[in-house]
Amino acid sequence: MSGPDGGGKAWGGRFDGGTDKRVEAFSESVSYDRRLFRHDIAGSIAHSRMLAAVGVMTPAEADAIARALKEIEAEIESGKFAYDISKEDIHMHIESALIARLGDTGRKLHTGRSRNDQVATDSKLWTRDALDRGDGLLVGWMQALVRAGRRHQNAVIPGYTHLQRAMPVLAGHYFLAWVEKCHRDRGRLADCRKRLNENPLGAAALAGTSLPIDRRMTSEALGFDRPAANSLDISSDRDWAVESVFVLTMIQLHLSAWAEEWILWTTSEFGFLSLPDAYCTGSSIMPQKKNPDVLELTRGRAARVIGDLTTLLTLVKGLPLAYNRDLQEDKEPLFDAFDTVEACLALAALITDGARLREDRIRARIDEGYLDATALMEALIKRNIPQRSAHELVGKLVGLCERKGCRLADLSETDLKAVDTRLDGSLRDELGVDHAVAGYRSEGSSAPGEVDNRLAHWEQALGLAKAAK
Amino acid sequence: MSGPDGGGKAWGGRFDGGTDKRVEAFSESVSYDRRLFRHDIAGSIAHSRMLAAVGVMTPAEADAIARALKEIEAEIESGKFAYDISKEDIHMHIESALIARLGDTGRKLHTGRSRNDQVATDSKLWTRDALDRGDGLLVGWMQALVRAGRRHQNAVIPGYTHLQRAMPVLAGHYFLAWVEKCHRDRGRLADCRKRLNENPLGAAALAGTSLPIDRRMTSEALGFDRPAANSLDISSDRDWAVESVFVLTMIQLHLSAWAEEWILWTTSEFGFLSLPDAYCTGSSIMPQKKNPDVLELTRGRAARVIGDLTTLLTLVKGLPLAYNRDLQEDKEPLFDAFDTVEACLALAALITDGARLREDRIRARIDEGYLDATALMEALIKRNIPQRSAHELVGKLVGLCERKGCRLADLSETDLKAVDTRLDGSLRDELGVDHAVAGYRSEGSSAPGEVDNRLAHWEQALGLAKAAK
Amino acid sequence: MSGPDGGGKAWGGRFDGGTDKRVEAFSESVSYDRRLFRHDIAGSIAHSRMLAAVGVMTPAEADAIARALKEIEAEIESGKFAYDISKEDIHMHIESALIARLGDTGRKLHTGRSRNDQVATDSKLWTRDALDRGDGLLVGWMQALVRAGRRHQNAVIPGYTHLQRAMPVLAGHYFLAWVEKCHRDRGRLADCRKRLNENPLGAAALAGTSLPIDRRMTSEALGFDRPAANSLDISSDRDWAVESVFVLTMIQLHLSAWAEEWILWTTSEFGFLSLPDAYCTGSSIMPQKKNPDVLELTRGRAARVIGDLTTLLTLVKGLPLAYNRDLQEDKEPLFDAFDTVEACLALAALITDGARLREDRIRARIDEGYLDATALMEALIKRNIPQRSAHELVGKLVGLCERKGCRLADLSETDLKAVDTRLDGSLRDELGVDHAVAGYRSEGSSAPGEVDNRLAHWEQALGLAKAAK
Amino acid sequence: MSGPDGGGKAWGGRFDGGTDKRVEAFSESVSYDRRLFRHDIAGSIAHSRMLAAVGVMTPAEADAIARALKEIEAEIESGKFAYDISKEDIHMHIESALIARLGDTGRKLHTGRSRNDQVATDSKLWTRDALDRGDGLLVGWMQALVRAGRRHQNAVIPGYTHLQRAMPVLAGHYFLAWVEKCHRDRGRLADCRKRLNENPLGAAALAGTSLPIDRRMTSEALGFDRPAANSLDISSDRDWAVESVFVLTMIQLHLSAWAEEWILWTTSEFGFLSLPDAYCTGSSIMPQKKNPDVLELTRGRAARVIGDLTTLLTLVKGLPLAYNRDLQEDKEPLFDAFDTVEACLALAALITDGARLREDRIRARIDEGYLDATALMEALIKRNIPQRSAHELVGKLVGLCERKGCRLADLSETDLKAVDTRLDGSLRDELGVDHAVAGYRSEGSSAPGEVDNRLAHWEQALGLAKAAK
Repeated sequence: MSGPDGGGKAWGGRFDGGTDKRVEAFSESVSYDRRLFRHDIAGSIAHSRMLAAVGVMTPAEADAIARALKEIEAEIESGKFAYDISKEDIHMHIESALIARLGDTGRKLHTGRSRNDQVATDSKLWTRDALDRGDGLLVGWMQALVRAGRRHQNAVIPGYTHLQRAMPVLAGHYFLAWVEKCHRDRGRLADCRKRLNENPLGAAALAGTSLPIDRRMTSEALGFDRPAANSLDISSDRDWAVESVFVLTMIQLHLSAWAEEWILWTTSEFGFLSLPDAYCTGSSIMPQKKNPDVLELTRGRAARVIGDLTTLLTLVKGLPLAYNRDLQEDKEPLFDAFDTVEACLALAALITDGARLREDRIRARIDEGYLDATALMEALIKRNIPQRSAHELVGKLVGLCERKGCRLADLSETDLKAVDTRLDGSLRDELGVDHAVAGYRSEGSSAPGEVDNRLAHWEQALGLAKAAK
Repeated sequence: MSGPDGGGKAWGGRFDGGTDKRVEAFSESVSYDRRLFRHDIAGSIAHSRMLAAVGVMTPAEADAIARALKEIEAEIESGKFAYDISKEDIHMHIESALIARLGDTGRKLHTGRSRNDQVATDSKLWTRDALDRGDGLLVGWMQALVRAGRRHQNAVIPGYTHLQRAMPVLAGHYFLAWVEKCHRDRGRLADCRKRLNENPLGAAALAGTSLPIDRRMTSEALGFDRPAANSLDISSDRDWAVESVFVLTMIQLHLSAWAEEWILWTTSEFGFLSLPDAYCTGSSIMPQKKNPDVLELTRGRAARVIGDLTTLLTLVKGLPLAYNRDLQEDKEPLFDAFDTVEACLALAALITDGARLREDRIRARIDEGYLDATALMEALIKRNIPQRSAHELVGKLVGLCERKGCRLADLSETDLKAVDTRLDGSLRDELGVDHAVAGYRSEGSSAPGEVDNRLAHWEQALGLAKAAK
Repeated sequence: MSGPDGGGKAWGGRFDGGTDKRVEAFSESVSYDRRLFRHDIAGSIAHSRMLAAVGVMTPAEADAIARALKEIEAEIESGKFAYDISKEDIHMHIESALIARLGDTGRKLHTGRSRNDQVATDSKLWTRDALDRGDGLLVGWMQALVRAGRRHQNAVIPGYTHLQRAMPVLAGHYFLAWVEKCHRDRGRLADCRKRLNENPLGAAALAGTSLPIDRRMTSEALGFDRPAANSLDISSDRDWAVESVFVLTMIQLHLSAWAEEWILWTTSEFGFLSLPDAYCTGSSIMPQKKNPDVLELTRGRAARVIGDLTTLLTLVKGLPLAYNRDLQEDKEPLFDAFDTVEACLALAALITDGARLREDRIRARIDEGYLDATALMEALIKRNIPQRSAHELVGKLVGLCERKGCRLADLSETDLKAVDTRLDGSLRDELGVDHAVAGYRSEGSSAPGEVDNRLAHWEQALGLAKAAK
Repeated sequence: MSGPDGGGKAWGGRFDGGTDKRVEAFSESVSYDRRLFRHDIAGSIAHSRMLAAVGVMTPAEADAIARALKEIEAEIESGKFAYDISKEDIHMHIESALIARLGDTGRKLHTGRSRNDQVATDSKLWTRDALDRGDGLLVGWMQALVRAGRRHQNAVIPGYTHLQRAMPVLAGHYFLAWVEKCHRDRGRLADCRKRLNENPLGAAALAGTSLPIDRRMTSEALGFDRPAANSLDISSDRDWAVESVFVLTMIQLHLSAWAEEWILWTTSEFGFLSLPDAYCTGSSIMPQKKNPDVLELTRGRAARVIGDLTTLLTLVKGLPLAYNRDLQEDKEPLFDAFDTVEACLALAALITDGARLREDRIRARIDEGYLDATALMEALIKRNIPQRSAHELVGKLVGLCERKGCRLADLSETDLKAVDTRLDGSLRDELGVDHAVAGYRSEGSSAPGEVDNRLAHWEQALGLAKAAK
């Protein structure tokens, strides 16, 4: 027998023969959509209570359904629930178990809805929770970054462009740069959640229903802001999945950039950072190796999330209205992207807390790379040399240092004057990374006061007590 | 000679030899970033006025710079401005032209800023304008869709799932489904614009500056909401470009789905839609062809925008702080995505206005595909047959029709009762697409009243006078 | 204790503390690389036999290792083998089980190799088998296509460009178009296999080894054509994975195009094709639905394989030499792409065998769309009217038909002469799809003889007995 | 007037009104497909000579066409040819110019072909040339790599895994790793070219023609191996474009990895490599900067080529037979991918020739990172300690060195024996990177003899005289 009765399909009446077993294996989704079971049950309870409220079933029927669904939920949670790919998806499994318990009462649950709106509802509820989890994990990483910023607040480190040493910055400023990126990520999460939070339930297959359902009631029960407005749109819409995975991709790209940098910093050549052994692994053949595997995997998994996004984008391209079965393929990339980003964010917070800048090693080579050249140029500007001319002069001084193998601070007054008579020995007071950093004054710069204020801002915003310095 | 003086590079002092010509050709960007000239000039004027306000240059110098820059802008607009790839980018071209006019005064413009923050500022300004244009074009298409909805408001058309006929819907409802998708797109555009609108200017290369610049003043002058908060973040940030192209991708994906559907509708087999000749093309060999090329290109160009997005995502993956030259590659995909989506939206509005549903042809075959089967099932539910049982019964009736080659409405009372004794001839009153459509009552459904209200809603929201029906 | 002894890591000696459990869960691969167990064991047996041959271990030790590994293989196959993520990957699991059985003898297995070359070897062996399976499945689909071509060989169907009816073709020709695409896919599979088939084993971590291993011996034992030539290249190379997934992507794209077309053909509007119920599914709410789900999933899964490829491309971008842990992420997209394409190919063959063209329905509407217009144009060319002029004239005739609502064959001699005096009633002998098809004569065209010959060619090439017609 | 006569469309007869100007701008391709003009003319000349050979036109007509086409080619090359988007594409421009010169003779050129097969032919010819250029450029880079390998053949550099120092290798071995990758790239280019090289011409629109064309003759004239076999396949096939861009993507990914590595090597922290000034650029604000821009752009442009490939893959997904206008979008990504990869390869060869390893700086820090640990482990294996035990012991020695802040060579006999009594002072003879490198003996390893032989192999294979050492 077909139908959710007896464990069959939702759609048997019109069909003569059974489904080919290979087709069942090909088209089942229960192996991955079982993750939706809690949200499916919550949606079905809300739906049945609404059906009772509008008189399509009795309150006693709705109560029986809710009780039975909670039992099924417990059974699934306990691991005892039996799955069978001939029942296609988690929705059929649950409805079938309900009918097995309740008979005709269970057969009324699917009134005024379709799998199309049901799946969209369950998936949106799941995604909404996942967005909230992601936000919490982002906050966790941001807190760790702010703590690290305080820990190493006034250490001077090289700032890079083109991976070449550029200008000195405070480590506190460095950590805060990542916090700013995370903050934008949180904004994207919030915007995505807001847009997602419209109720698909009651769109039925694609056109709505002739039954007197109350979509505002289920919206309220399920925490949606309002019913989504057009049933054809609902049946075809996967914007919320694609946008969610995009938002995750941006997070993971930020993580990948951070991971790349810290991989560099843990090399023998940079030597800026030490990681706890617990977050590293070794080699099966090279006994000395201590590898930053978690960082490498974090970087590599950006490729994975980009792949998930590409799948979703390509999936929905050129699909006419309304639901097409292609859309079943939305779930695995969605789940994978959340799983990946959540795991990486959780470890990023741990690593950020556990890592230590090797301040002495950084300091020992801080004079390499002419990090104070821009400070010198700005000193010339303050002496009324136009910027372009000042830039040119300092460029010549650097060229001279290169040939002599010395620092700018090592140039003699004679050296300076040989380049331009406006230069004199007093300029040497402007040199050195400490001087350069102390001189910053623009808003958002690495000026010590700016960094301190911004750390305090984030400590407050993220609920951190200000660390003792 | 090096430097923007005499048309050279911004950075010659440290270098012994010139740049290889092949390297110049390889790394130039002026061939495409010249599009930024207006925004570059606006940014430089704001920057120089601020420099004057804080005393880094005189008001007279700032005035001279502003005047000269406006002259240069006019020269560029007139097409007389000479480009030379040895000057790398549009920023160098303009500054070099300024110095040629003003000498040392021009050499002061680049004080307290770097090309890193300058390029970010120019690009954000350009993108902000482009987002606004995109929003306007979206509104244009939405208006056309609403007009089409009114034009064909009460025509009954097949609604599809799996591209199989599913349930009947009003054409008005159909057009509104696209409006809802566009509305989400507008929300994404607005959120992206809001997030973008923080001022990079004054971050300088990556660490800020020791000069007394006022970033709030340039923010206000350029319409930014506030200065972006962290100079290292600014120097490395391309979130705004990636998010913009993502938002565009979503628009183009909606366009691609619409185009696919209308390509189907213009086939000989569907025959639902006629397009004006002016938007079609023919064949070089097959004299009878009238091809929906604009729709096909619209669909195909979704691939292009997905490619642009993939480029941007892959570009920023794993880049350490702060600026890396890879980021120069952000502009072409950004420009291409906007160009593509803007062109497609503009034509989508034209085509939507010019197309006509072939209501008679649709009507002639509206009885195919059992579009009233769900209405029949819901009638059984109202007669207290549980949904799953009702679904099963109607499935059997459809199977019977298939074997007989008839419509549901053609089944006799005997046929009905043979399937289940609860079925009787009065059910035939529930059949037919008109009856089915009239029966819809859920919020967001294709019920005539719902559709009429929603059309009115959008007419008001989009500033359309309600069309006479 | 660390090391594969006692179930630990391969790399403990240098480390003070244990690995964080969250890191183990984050970085383990045994949950998916366990699929490699057979190839890992084959590789280890070949490696140990070689070590014995060159005197690094005794033949008795190699025999003991081979026996124990075969026992472990049987245990894994039986499902009794215990996995533990603290042992990271399948390689460590197997080696650890070996040491548990053999003690110091087992501890010698990893001599002269590293996990880097071991993983590459196992993965290449797995991929080589998978490529061979893919080739077999392609052949299976090609055979089904050829059978379908014979079955419907001489049915005339519309050929489309721009999804508009263009010229008539034989169904036999249609099916063969897909065979040609598959044939290119087979070529790509073979080229990829050839390039993959170089032995990584013995590259060790990245530089080779000081031990007297014989890489030619393991190459021969494992069926590789030769040892790969450069150890640094081997340690970093994932070309074979990326190319494999690209080849699969091309197959899946062909499948997606075929699926799209057959989805169209099973619509109510086209009505060209019937699919067996066993390969379709229904709706939970719409009792009449019969949906081509397998085709839709096949189309949708192209997005999945494109996503897999994107992941791999993005993964390897910008990775310096040699092995980086990011590369662990190569396996899941590789496995997923093969799983997806293999499943789709298998069902494509079944569906192709089970589907039937509805020749009567196609025939009933074959006169729509002026499919004979090009034949008419070529008839004019044969009467010495230049092609461009002939094209113009037939275009005018079609315009006339459009206005009159008739076929080209329905135009009167008067109609013809009104357009151009060179036209006369004898042209009507050139009209009609059957005449058009019979007229084709170019090589590779839909000429009946061409199609028959090409079917025979493929029947022979693919080992099919020529079907009785 | 419509038609190529008078500069119009190829397809006007059936149309009442003109094309909307916005549609012309939207759908034109001449702004980029003009690059195909030489191949279009070559194809048309071959086609017309064949038409003469089979009697469809006279030899005099074919001669006139060939002469006129050569004139048009010269006009295009001279930059005097006028383009007009109302003529859509380069093919229409050239045919229109031909008709303007020759009248009715020109109107005969398009006999027995369509734009579908014409465009495919032109594009394949262009791509075939481009693949050959790409191969030449790859050879150029390989030659430079081999020269660099000889130049620095016996310098010992650190080999890395996980970007951590792993084992020492010869610089000669290092450069050869890239040569091996290029060699696989050449294989892919050759396989792609072979598969591409089948003649589309004569497939006409999609079904062939009733005219007595000889496709073998045009195949021979245009250097194709044979006529492609199925006209429907030809009309829809873009495998050759996608595969070409994939092959390019692999090349660019190799370039990106090389660029990443060399960017690292030019940092202040690594200091392994110096690049000529001519291939670097500076900063507009930081006077000291010397940035490896060409390498960064090379890395970044991998994103661009991946984007091109994604566009093509997504473009062809789900397109039914045969030609769809979406396919016009194949050209820009194809051209862009070739332009990008060709430019990067050309500069890679220059940079490889111009760069110098800073052997003294590398040597100065070669003792960092325990590069000899694996050599030590293998020495223990030779003393009959099982690999896993030997690995464990050396791990402990490294731990000891870490705590003492010394090299392995600095451990005393007492230190050694404290770890394991089997260890003694003679082991110190096994230490040091020079000893480690000299000890390699496996095929494909960094053994000096292996490296020398492989350099010689490539010098011969690539036509380089062996450099004096």
